[in-house]
Amino acid sequence: MTATEQRTYQYILTDVRDGIAVVTMNRPEKRNALSVAHMEELTDAFRRIGEDRDIAVAILRGAGPIFCAGHDLNELTGCDTPTARRIFAVCTTLMQTIRSIPQPVIAQVHGLATAAGFQLAATCDLIVAAAGTRFQTPGVKIGLFCSTPMVAVSRVLPPKKTFELLVTGEPITAEEAAQLGMVNRVVPAEELEAATWELAEKIRAASRYVVGIGKQAFYRQLELPEHLAYAYAMEVMALNALAADAQEGICAFLEKRQPQWRNA
Amino acid sequence: MTATEQRTYQYILTDVRDGIAVVTMNRPEKRNALSVAHMEELTDAFRRIGEDRDIAVAILRGAGPIFCAGHDLNELTGCDTPTARRIFAVCTTLMQTIRSIPQPVIAQVHGLATAAGFQLAATCDLIVAAAGTRFQTPGVKIGLFCSTPMVAVSRVLPPKKTFELLVTGEPITAEEAAQLGMVNRVVPAEELEAATWELAEKIRAASRYVVGIGKQAFYRQLELPEHLAYAYAMEVMALNALAADAQEGICAFLEKRQPQWRNA
Amino acid sequence: MTATEQRTYQYILTDVRDGIAVVTMNRPEKRNALSVAHMEELTDAFRRIGEDRDIAVAILRGAGPIFCAGHDLNELTGCDTPTARRIFAVCTTLMQTIRSIPQPVIAQVHGLATAAGFQLAATCDLIVAAAGTRFQTPGVKIGLFCSTPMVAVSRVLPPKKTFELLVTGEPITAEEAAQLGMVNRVVPAEELEAATWELAEKIRAASRYVVGIGKQAFYRQLELPEHLAYAYAMEVMALNALAADAQEGICAFLEKRQPQWRNA
Repeated sequence: MTATEQRTYQYILTDVRDGIAVVTMNRPEKRNALSVAHMEELTDAFRRIGEDRDIAVAILRGAGPIFCAGHDLNELTGCDTPTARRIFAVCTTLMQTIRSIPQPVIAQVHGLATAAGFQLAATCDLIVAAAGTRFQTPGVKIGLFCSTPMVAVSRVLPPKKTFELLVTGEPITAEEAAQLGMVNRVVPAEELEAATWELAEKIRAASRYVVGIGKQAFYRQLELPEHLAYAYAMEVMALNALAADAQEGICAFLEKRQPQWRNA
Repeated sequence: MTATEQRTYQYILTDVRDGIAVVTMNRPEKRNALSVAHMEELTDAFRRIGEDRDIAVAILRGAGPIFCAGHDLNELTGCDTPTARRIFAVCTTLMQTIRSIPQPVIAQVHGLATAAGFQLAATCDLIVAAAGTRFQTPGVKIGLFCSTPMVAVSRVLPPKKTFELLVTGEPITAEEAAQLGMVNRVVPAEELEAATWELAEKIRAASRYVVGIGKQAFYRQLELPEHLAYAYAMEVMALNALAADAQEGICAFLEKRQPQWRNA
Repeated sequence: MTATEQRTYQYILTDVRDGIAVVTMNRPEKRNALSVAHMEELTDAFRRIGEDRDIAVAILRGAGPIFCAGHDLNELTGCDTPTARRIFAVCTTLMQTIRSIPQPVIAQVHGLATAAGFQLAATCDLIVAAAGTRFQTPGVKIGLFCSTPMVAVSRVLPPKKTFELLVTGEPITAEEAAQLGMVNRVVPAEELEAATWELAEKIRAASRYVVGIGKQAFYRQLELPEHLAYAYAMEVMALNALAADAQEGICAFLEKRQPQWRNA
C-alpha cells in the first residue's frame, strides 16, 4: 500500500500511518451495508495489506453513526439461487482473507454491528468497542436466519448466549460481550480511536515476522485435537526459536536492552 | 399434540397454548427423578412436539420443589450390565431428541438440577433460572462419576469450572452460571414462569420454518472446523434466502411493515 | 512415593501427606525457570504419583516470589534445531504426563506464571490463585511467540482474550481469569495454601478409582463430536455403575450413611 500501488475504492477508505493500516467502511448513508461491491473492495484491501511487509497491524472501522448493518438487503430481494450463493461466497471470502493475512486485524466498533457486520467484527482478531455498542444477529426477524454470521459468533461466545441472540434477534451490549471474553476493550465513544491505536501500537512494537507466525499458528492449532495441536505447535516453536528475531530478542532480554528486529 | 392425538402420560404433563408447548416433569415426590419410564415419556412428548407444525417453542419444567434430581438411583442398585447400558441409552436418546426437534426448547429451572437433571437443562437450547437455583454433578460423592452429564455440561461451561463441579460434586449457582454464559436469564422465583414465557413469545414471533432451519444448522456447524462450517452455512443461508418467508421478511422490512409468515 | 521409593531431586521438592502429594518447583533464584533437567524431574515426579494408588490428589506450587517464569532462556540462546526440538518435546511430555495420571492436579499459583509457566498452570486440572497473580504469554516481546503455551491457554480462555495476551504480551490477572472461568478460586495470598488444601481434601473424600475414571473420560470426550462423546460416555458410565464403589456409594446414599470406598 505504498502511494503508487494504492488503489482508489468507491466504498471504502484506506490509509497507512507508521505501519498501521486503517480500513474504513465508507457508505454511511447505507449504514455501511455490505453490498457485493463493498465486500470485494474490503477483500482487495486486506489482501494488499497482507502482502505489504511494512504494515504491522490493521484496523477496521465504519464511517458514520454505526460500524456496519450487515448485508445489503436490496441485493437479496427477489434474487435467484446463483446470485444468493455468490453473495454469501463473496462474504465468506472476505472473512477468510482477514484470517489469512499475517497482520492482526482490530475491529474498532461503535454504535451497532448487525448480522454480517457482527460477523465481520467477530472475525477480526481483536475487538475494541465504544461503550453501549450493540452486537446483533437480527436475521430471524426478517425470515433469514443469520447462518453464516453464526459460524463466527458461535466461536467467540458461549453456545447458550449465541443461540439466544440468533433466535430472538435481540442485541448483546459491548459490556456484556466483554464479560464473556468476546470484546477486548470497552471505552467511552470519545476514547475509541485512541484506545484502538494504543492496542495497535503495542502489537507494532513486536517483530512482524514473529506475530505473523503466531497468528497463523493460533487459528490452525485451535481446530486440532490437543495432541495434534502440540505436535504442530512444537514444530512452530522450534523453528521460531532459531529465527534471527528470536535469537536477537532472547539476547536483548538477557542483556537487558531493546531488541532490533531484522526478519521481514 | 391436538387434543385427539394427545397421549396421557403417567410421569409428565403436557400442554399447548398459542403455539407454546409446556412439558412438566411430574414426580415431585421423587424430586422428578428420571426413571426409565419417565425418560421414555419425555422422549415421546418431545418427538410429538417435533412433528407438530403448530408448535413454535417448547418449555421444560419440573413440578414441586426442584427441577430434577437426576437418575432414579433405585434402578441402578444391583443392576446388571445390560440394564445399566439401557438406562444410559434411554437417557442419551432423550437428550438427542431435544436437540433434533426443530423447535427451540427452554429449560425453566428452579431449586436444583443435579446429574442427569443438570444434563437435561444443559441440553435444552436456552435456560431461564430462578435466583439461587443450583446446578450440580454430585455423582462422584456416590461413586458414580457424572460421565454422561459431563458431555452436556462441558459444552456449556469452561473446562476448569466443569472439572471442579465434577470432582468436588459442589453446585454452581444460576448467578455464576449466567456470568459464564450458561444461563440466559436469572430472575426472582416468582417471575420465573413469566420470564420464560416472555422469551418463548419472542421466539414465537419468528417464522417457525426459519427457526427450525437455524436450530439444526447451529448444532451442525458448531462441531465442524471453521472452513467446513462456512461451506455448510453458506448453502443453508443461500437456500434460506430463497424461501418464501425470507423474501416476505426482507420485503416487509424494506417496506416497514409486519411480515406475514407462510412457510410451515 | 513411599519413603523407600522416593527419589531425591535437584530442582524440585516432593512430599505426600494423607494422600495429597505436593510438588514444589524449587529454583527460586531462577524464578523456577523450566530448564530441561527441571522439566524432566517434574515429569518423573508426576509419573510416580500416577503409579501410587495411595495418592488421591496432587498440588503443584513454586518456591520463592513467583510460581514459574517459563523456559530457561539460557538454554535457547544459540541452540541448534535438534536442541530446540528437544526442549519443546520435553516440555510437551511434562504437560501430557500431568493430563495422563489418574489424580487431579491443582496448580497453586502466586505472583506470576509466564509462558511455559502459564502453560503449566493451564494444563493442571484446577487452578487456585493468590489475589493479584498475573498470567502472561510475553514471548512475542523476545521474538519467540508462545506457540506451545497457546495450545493450553486457548483451551481455557476465550479466543479473543487469548489472542490479545499472545500478541501484546500483557498479563491477565487471576481475578479477570476467574470471571472467564479459567481460575477456580482467587484468595488472599496468605490463604492460598489453605484454600488449595481445602479443595484437595474435598477431592480426596471421593473414591480414587472413580475420580481416575472421570479425569480420563473428561479429556477424551471433550475432543469428540457430541454424538461420539455420548457413545463413549455411556459406556464409561455403564461400567462405572457396576463397580463396587458405585454400588457401595449408591447404597450408602439411599441408606443415608457414609460410603466405604474399596476400589483402588
